Amino acid sequence: MERKISSKTIRRCLCIGAILFGGAASITSVMAEEYFNVVDGELQRPTGYREWVYVGTPVTPNDMNNGKAAFPEHHNVYIDPTSWSHWKKTGEFRDGTIIIKELVAVGSKAAVSGAGYFQGDFIGLEATIKSTSINPNEPGNWSYYSFSTPDHKSLTDTAKAFPAAACNACHAAAAADDFVFTQYYPVLRAGKGAGTLATGGHSSMLK
Amino acid sequence: MERKISSKTIRRCLCIGAILFGGAASITSVMAEEYFNVVDGELQRPTGYREWVYVGTPVTPNDMNNGKAAFPEHHNVYIDPTSWSHWKKTGEFRDGTIIIKELVAVGSKAAVSGAGYFQGDFIGLEATIKSTSINPNEPGNWSYYSFSTPDHKSLTDTAKAFPAAACNACHAAAAADDFVFTQYYPVLRAGKGAGTLATGGHSSMLK
Repeated sequence: MERKISSKTIRRCLCIGAILFGGAASITSVMAEEYFNVVDGELQRPTGYREWVYVGTPVTPNDMNNGKAAFPEHHNVYIDPTSWSHWKKTGEFRDGTIIIKELVAVGSKAAVSGAGYFQGDFIGLEATIKSTSINPNEPGNWSYYSFSTPDHKSLTDTAKAFPAAACNACHAAAAADDFVFTQYYPVLRAGKGAGTLATGGHSSMLK
Repeated sequence: MERKISSKTIRRCLCIGAILFGGAASITSVMAEEYFNVVDGELQRPTGYREWVYVGTPVTPNDMNNGKAAFPEHHNVYIDPTSWSHWKKTGEFRDGTIIIKELVAVGSKAAVSGAGYFQGDFIGLEATIKSTSINPNEPGNWSYYSFSTPDHKSLTDTAKAFPAAACNACHAAAAADDFVFTQYYPVLRAGKGAGTLATGGHSSMLK
């Protein structure tokens, strides 16, 4: 990850002094945005995202992918509230956007409502952030993270960004809407540039 | 729907006068709760629910139900924010809870992330409300509504409650958790009585 020092970076970057221990100097770099912090290049696990704005849930179950789904089962996707307001007003993702993808196992495949895929336990957490100061040279200024442990039974407290190419190999297909797969997120599609009205039920049309 | 006049009912019920036109008297009954209104026995279509708290998405696609799913495709489920706070604190649904089920068509079954079910267009809206004053004699004091039109291309502005037996035939199976299928809503399961902490990422465990 390359960092260029701009006035914007300086505004956001709190360099928490030089902490001296036995003569060794340690400088902690904190890049603070409204809904996330990157400390020494690692994204701190966000909190409270289940109370952000939900945008959609693709489900790519193992049993439809030869037992080897890239993103097992359901993934519930959220955007932070301030970026949602900006998206409604402008139709664009603001600098400082964070999008969360929470992985949820298939809990069952049958219920009284019929056969299908029903959400079971949480099994992972991923995030993408858009930041001109943190990712000045990445496509759309996005970087991608996973807090899932290999056994999918707990979460890490921090995460390093994936190598950009690994994520952009797929996300490049969504370049038309700033590398976000809005075609699968109906709440984002309906809210895009829709003005300041709260979306959902504000007219008699399904939008 | 039977109504008993209690002090609670009177507190909530605004009887908007007797409007006289050519000698005919019309009395409008408005049962007002924080996130919904029932006017003359009809629930007014709620607004802003896509900014409430999302709890889960079952998907029961037509192609897994012989082309005749009872609830076609995905349904995104939300709870109003005040009832969510109450649920976190007490593990119970408060008097005045509203839960929304927004129906979303399957938009596609394949993406770069794999094969699965991806959300397309909004095709319907349903709601359930819990109210001791509106539903004093129904199981759990719940009543159920649909704003979907038969062609699933628009929404009605108001809805009458379904006959209680039609919905309770299935919802009775969820009686252990106040007739709500919490087993399919991981956000409700994780948040139940979890205290005042914002749920989602507040510990290193997946809950």
